Amino acid sequence: MSGHTTNLRLKLPLICVFLQLLTILLFAVFVCYDNQTNAKLWHEELKLHNKSHLDNEFYLRYPSFQDVHTMIFVGFGFLMTFLKRYSFSSVAFNFLIAAFAIQWSILTQGFFHSFHHGKIYIGIESMINADFCTGAILISFGAVLGKTSPIQLLLMTWLEVILFAVNEHILLDILGAKDAGGSMTIHTFGAYFGLMMSRVLYRPHLDKSKEREGSTYHSDLFAMIGTIFLWLFWPSFNSAIAAHGDDQQRTVMNTYFSLAASTLATFATSALVNAGGKMDMVHIQNAALAGGVVVGTSGEMMLTPFGAMIAGVLAGFVSTLGFKFLTPILASKLKIQDTCGVHNLHGMPGILGALLGVLVAALATHDTYGEGMTDVFPLVADGRRTAAYQSVCQLIGLCVTLGIAVIGGSLVGFILKMTCLGSPPDTQCFEDQIYWEVPENHHDGFQCLEAAKELDRETVA
Amino acid sequence: MSGHTTNLRLKLPLICVFLQLLTILLFAVFVCYDNQTNAKLWHEELKLHNKSHLDNEFYLRYPSFQDVHTMIFVGFGFLMTFLKRYSFSSVAFNFLIAAFAIQWSILTQGFFHSFHHGKIYIGIESMINADFCTGAILISFGAVLGKTSPIQLLLMTWLEVILFAVNEHILLDILGAKDAGGSMTIHTFGAYFGLMMSRVLYRPHLDKSKEREGSTYHSDLFAMIGTIFLWLFWPSFNSAIAAHGDDQQRTVMNTYFSLAASTLATFATSALVNAGGKMDMVHIQNAALAGGVVVGTSGEMMLTPFGAMIAGVLAGFVSTLGFKFLTPILASKLKIQDTCGVHNLHGMPGILGALLGVLVAALATHDTYGEGMTDVFPLVADGRRTAAYQSVCQLIGLCVTLGIAVIGGSLVGFILKMTCLGSPPDTQCFEDQIYWEVPENHHDGFQCLEAAKELDRETVA
Amino acid sequence: MSGHTTNLRLKLPLICVFLQLLTILLFAVFVCYDNQTNAKLWHEELKLHNKSHLDNEFYLRYPSFQDVHTMIFVGFGFLMTFLKRYSFSSVAFNFLIAAFAIQWSILTQGFFHSFHHGKIYIGIESMINADFCTGAILISFGAVLGKTSPIQLLLMTWLEVILFAVNEHILLDILGAKDAGGSMTIHTFGAYFGLMMSRVLYRPHLDKSKEREGSTYHSDLFAMIGTIFLWLFWPSFNSAIAAHGDDQQRTVMNTYFSLAASTLATFATSALVNAGGKMDMVHIQNAALAGGVVVGTSGEMMLTPFGAMIAGVLAGFVSTLGFKFLTPILASKLKIQDTCGVHNLHGMPGILGALLGVLVAALATHDTYGEGMTDVFPLVADGRRTAAYQSVCQLIGLCVTLGIAVIGGSLVGFILKMTCLGSPPDTQCFEDQIYWEVPENHHDGFQCLEAAKELDRETVA
Repeated sequence: MSGHTTNLRLKLPLICVFLQLLTILLFAVFVCYDNQTNAKLWHEELKLHNKSHLDNEFYLRYPSFQDVHTMIFVGFGFLMTFLKRYSFSSVAFNFLIAAFAIQWSILTQGFFHSFHHGKIYIGIESMINADFCTGAILISFGAVLGKTSPIQLLLMTWLEVILFAVNEHILLDILGAKDAGGSMTIHTFGAYFGLMMSRVLYRPHLDKSKEREGSTYHSDLFAMIGTIFLWLFWPSFNSAIAAHGDDQQRTVMNTYFSLAASTLATFATSALVNAGGKMDMVHIQNAALAGGVVVGTSGEMMLTPFGAMIAGVLAGFVSTLGFKFLTPILASKLKIQDTCGVHNLHGMPGILGALLGVLVAALATHDTYGEGMTDVFPLVADGRRTAAYQSVCQLIGLCVTLGIAVIGGSLVGFILKMTCLGSPPDTQCFEDQIYWEVPENHHDGFQCLEAAKELDRETVA
Repeated sequence: MSGHTTNLRLKLPLICVFLQLLTILLFAVFVCYDNQTNAKLWHEELKLHNKSHLDNEFYLRYPSFQDVHTMIFVGFGFLMTFLKRYSFSSVAFNFLIAAFAIQWSILTQGFFHSFHHGKIYIGIESMINADFCTGAILISFGAVLGKTSPIQLLLMTWLEVILFAVNEHILLDILGAKDAGGSMTIHTFGAYFGLMMSRVLYRPHLDKSKEREGSTYHSDLFAMIGTIFLWLFWPSFNSAIAAHGDDQQRTVMNTYFSLAASTLATFATSALVNAGGKMDMVHIQNAALAGGVVVGTSGEMMLTPFGAMIAGVLAGFVSTLGFKFLTPILASKLKIQDTCGVHNLHGMPGILGALLGVLVAALATHDTYGEGMTDVFPLVADGRRTAAYQSVCQLIGLCVTLGIAVIGGSLVGFILKMTCLGSPPDTQCFEDQIYWEVPENHHDGFQCLEAAKELDRETVA
Repeated sequence: MSGHTTNLRLKLPLICVFLQLLTILLFAVFVCYDNQTNAKLWHEELKLHNKSHLDNEFYLRYPSFQDVHTMIFVGFGFLMTFLKRYSFSSVAFNFLIAAFAIQWSILTQGFFHSFHHGKIYIGIESMINADFCTGAILISFGAVLGKTSPIQLLLMTWLEVILFAVNEHILLDILGAKDAGGSMTIHTFGAYFGLMMSRVLYRPHLDKSKEREGSTYHSDLFAMIGTIFLWLFWPSFNSAIAAHGDDQQRTVMNTYFSLAASTLATFATSALVNAGGKMDMVHIQNAALAGGVVVGTSGEMMLTPFGAMIAGVLAGFVSTLGFKFLTPILASKLKIQDTCGVHNLHGMPGILGALLGVLVAALATHDTYGEGMTDVFPLVADGRRTAAYQSVCQLIGLCVTLGIAVIGGSLVGFILKMTCLGSPPDTQCFEDQIYWEVPENHHDGFQCLEAAKELDRETVA
């Protein structure tokens, strides 16, 4: 049990205080309201450019932001409550690391995207981008759920947010790749980062906690709250930072159809692969969402509604098969214990989505996009590159993402191996009681059964 | 037990694949982005008509769409989780048939509403209308909940979506009736369609599953998630496709007041009709929503806030009485087993709402509506009909809706009687385990009690 | 047990009908659609002022309204479901009194804010303000949760809504204080009003219901639904009635950062104060929200992001300490039994927020705000008062709020002491069964355990 002191009484406050104070300090030095958020600057802009308040990005982006925000905190948070004895930790650690990640990523993304004259200028788009980066962190969290302490998770967040910003900068700013909904930057990156951490943190004796790795009836229902909110706001996720007008509307529509199609594919595949034709809630909770992941890159492009549906069907099918057949193999052969199956929901559909982006970019013509090409492929529109070259850049973007995720995840995994970080022992994984004050009688029927047995023993005696 | 093979291993994948491929095929042939969603067309419109991106309908309609979307997937989905052993099926079959219905109704509604030169042009309003049609399907689902297989439900969806589009076309396009929030097209149609199906599928021995027809403490709370989300987004539902400006704002306000008033009426009536003055969660979960249904037609009209309140009180009162007194009679005398009480929440309040529309239309004057008449009653505004004639058309609309719903529901009911559709036997209604892999210990205390009894038997032995 | 007839069969219908009919009557006499909601008036405005539908406040305010609405009904409603045997009452009484409060406060606020020529003109802002007032009522409800009947709660709502409007009128209209997010008018007012009621209604023998005052595992998860929705929509709450443009965007951003920082502070403090470093869900459920309360006044000001973070850290820290150390003292020494700990979440952070407003107002300069001063401090902008004087007015506003809340809460408390109001006896507090039809086997494992014991007794016999 040595090396596994899970008492966080001093460690957790220390790391929280350290990270929060560091953030406050850096914000004080670097971060300013942008010209739409600053009282003086916005009113100057109103005057000088004869604008109206309606031109403030707030009115164009805030509803999308709130949908994304709901996905991050409700969607991811509740999706992971499916474990029978780890629901407190799932929803609360999700809350903790997301609350830190949104602050920290404003800084790291700001240094790359909006650093002018020594200051980072932030507005509503910075908040959406911060929530996006947080999404990637929470995907990685899903791979190591139940096997890591909140201290490890905060450390992971601190480092992964930096690498996320580096990768995103390379893809969007250097390669000029398009990835509005983050098939590459968010899903592929988050998934393979998390899987590599899980590989490095491999626990050969995790079966000692096997009985806690399942769900209960009601924990599965709590998880469905997460699923449904993720599913229904995914069109907002993919479109939140797309260009105004047709781009946002098209992205929403493509995502809407892709998700609907992947839902049918998931139900079909789930019934097909299970004995007796019984469906599995794990598949519904996860694979039905693959349709959102798979159009993350191409959603803003002229994918056509039926194209989106085909992508969705494929993603739902592959993802469900992954849960049934691939996850056990990953654990036994590759020593990757993927608690939430992020490889199936984010990894494979993310790669598929990136490849779909490669394909749809290659097919772009001025005839199809018209003047709208400026928004979707600005470098193609102004003649600096061909559609084919754009397509190649998309492919390179995928490779870069995989490279940074795999290397970064491994390195962070090794750092998290430090014994002083409060990691649970193999016998206490997926267990809230090591970190939480848990009410008595907390597991539906479980302790009651124990009590019944106890009574029984007394009776017999 | 013959005729009740509930193993779906081949059937469910087959029907899902068939319906999804058919949809994709028809989309490929017929469906295009409209001129606000297509990159080229929207940018041409920007130029030719000197428009700004803010003029894109996306910014005027998307927040309403997302509220409606939340109602369909979270609201309806969780409202039906109240059954103690059928929560997986409730939320997941809701998910499945809604995911299919939104795709299929884009086609059927598109053929009637936006079919030009051999193509269906779709945008954000098509998505709202698709979600609306889905609402009607889910209401019908409520009437047969727990007694039908997902295959029957998909078949029902396939056919009902077509009849919905026919009925809507007759009402809105031919009769020129107004029904922005769907008191007639959605609630009355969905309810009586479902009730007639339930009548045809009558199970004389349903009492064999009686012990599963109740709720548990926590399943009632999950249902309240559905109720509250339906309740609070209902103003968006009724206003989502109302005309811009005053129409949308007025519809929201009328619905807000009607719902608030129906909530007080529901609590009052629930305490009054129950022995000991104890309230019943079933009433709160359902009847409090009747205020939204009852202003579905008249919400966009100059109903006045106090008029909306009176309507709400009436709806909440009638709906609660229905749950207490009418539902048992429907089951015993008319052989209509209405699992979710859709007659009380959607049927009677829908008819009331249609009649309220008849009344408020008759009272419309140019003095009250001014130029706004063009949006609310365009045919009255341009002198093609009088307010009295508009009122008559509203009434005919109600009759047509009832006719198509009753005949359509009966026909579909007979089709669903085919024995090969995986319907559960009378002894296994309201039971997840026939279609789902269910975790052990899944019913709060239930299996624990069994276990305790078991232990006890052993002890005695 | 005399004086504790909890049978509501006649009383609850009577008070509901009385309040609803009174409201309808007053609405019929006084309330009209405003010029953006009335069909005729809006179309006149379109013509006369050459406006477009986009200028209708609906498009600028409705998404914020819906977020606030979600907080009131889902957020507050589920936050209070944490009690093991009082979840029905928590979510449903929240629903009932909120449904009444939004109607009643339209009237009381309307008399002070928009009463012209004998009529109250209402639109989308009236609905937001009504929801805000309802927030204060629900905070007071939290202090007396589980110890009051729905009749007492409706009576409380009736009276508190009036006093809320008086206090708000004094602060905003007479003193010219700023309080867009309601640190004073909503949180401080609601909390101290509720605490004084709780003091007057002190129950020396409440320990007879002690065993029901805890939570179960899943009731804590239901409460987290409330927490997360409150947390994520709080930026909309604080900004919903802020001035257009930069003001709304800045308020959102400040609230976003303050909440994130208070979340880290809450986790840190929770682990620090508990034995074994185990965290407590009660802290996470509540104190993480203090960051939203603390910037309720200053959120629209030029607080700077790092200033918002410092405020959030302080609020999360103080709030968590309050739950751990102050709540027991309040109960034992001051005889204030604060069921939900509203003093920690709304009381202290509310006062802190008001004082922060005093400070930030004092620091306001024309150099920082530019022309934007007109929106934030109109009286300073047009030279009628200095920033220092504005700051003093803010402080007076806090004192007035505390005074009215303390006196009002005490008075209402005495009124609620009337024995005929259906209050539960000390032995039946925090118990749904006195007001609700509750399904059997309703408490996870509880009745099962009873059943096991019963079986056991039989066996022995």
